[in-house]
Order: sequence, then structure tokens, then C-alpha cells
Amino acid sequence: MTSEIPAELSRLRSSIDNLDAALVHLMAERFKCTQRVGELKAGLGLPPADPDREAEQIRRLRGLAEESQLDPEFAEDLLGFIVGRVVRNHEAIARDIG
Amino acid sequence: MTSEIPAELSRLRSSIDNLDAALVHLMAERFKCTQRVGELKAGLGLPPADPDREAEQIRRLRGLAEESQLDPEFAEDLLGFIVGRVVRNHEAIARDIG
Repeated sequence: MTSEIPAELSRLRSSIDNLDAALVHLMAERFKCTQRVGELKAGLGLPPADPDREAEQIRRLRGLAEESQLDPEFAEDLLGFIVGRVVRNHEAIARDIG
Repeated sequence: MTSEIPAELSRLRSSIDNLDAALVHLMAERFKCTQRVGELKAGLGLPPADPDREAEQIRRLRGLAEESQLDPEFAEDLLGFIVGRVVRNHEAIARDIG
């Protein structure tokens, strides 16, 4: 490992750090939404997961990924990772309410 | 499953869809940065992964997650998921250049 970091690498890392801060805030806001969705679903007796809705989300995000030159496989995997956590949260909310 | 979706659930889903579109564009921009980082590292003979840098990123993002009421464990897992993909890309770039 070298102790000298080229200026361009430093600049890129600074941009990555800014994007990651935005990512955290975006996810915080998304989980606020899904927390409330979980409460609504549990109150209505709806199941925590919704395969039709998820299939539509995947289709749409893959399209957006292609438009913005992001690997659509990665976009789908990332959504799957996030939704997996959301469904576990919804199951916990349903258990608490039920 | 019911065919009637309450208005509040529809509103929340619309917000989630907007946040997910922002997420895809954020990730597209992040991968543009890491693609160039991978090229720079490969050109300089630096290893694809950088444990010191990653530890610092995790520490910072956990702090930001706490401030914004996002589960810090989730923030760390999400970064790990993204960085895992980035490191695989960097390894591929290093193979192509090397």
C-alpha cells in the first residue's frame, strides 16, 4: 500500500462519500415509508410481502438502470436486498400488532 | 389479497417509487466513480480492496445512519453489499489491464 494517494483518487473518494451520505438519507426516508406501509398492511391483515408489486418494481427499476448505465442485474439485486429487510420488518410489525 | 388499496398505501408506494428512482441514479453515479477508481488503482498496482478506507466508510455511515434514524446495522450491511460488487468490478478491471 502506498501512502501517496493521487489527487484524482482523492477527488473520486470525496464524491463517493457524498453519494453515500445521500444514500443513507434516502434509505432513512424509504424505511420511514415502509414502516408505515407495514403498519397499514398489518392493520388491514395484508401479507408482509406482495409479489405482484415487487415484480412491477423490479421491471421499472431495471428500465431506469439501463437508461442510466447501471447494471440492471445489480439494480435488481440491490432492490432484493432492501426489500428482504423490509419484509422482515413487516413480519415483525405484524407479530407486534397481531 | 384485496383489490382495494387504501389511499395512504398508494401515496406511500408512490413515494417509495420516487425514492427508488433516485436510488438507481445515485448508484449509477457511484459506479461511474468506482469504475474510474478501479482503473486508477489497477494502473498504480494498488489492490482492489482497501480495508482501512472501508473501515472508515463504515464508521462514518453508521454515524450518519444513527443521526437519520436508520438502523446502523442495515447501513453497514448495505455498504458491504455495494462494496462487494465494487471490489469484484475492480478485480475484473485489474485482470483486463494486468
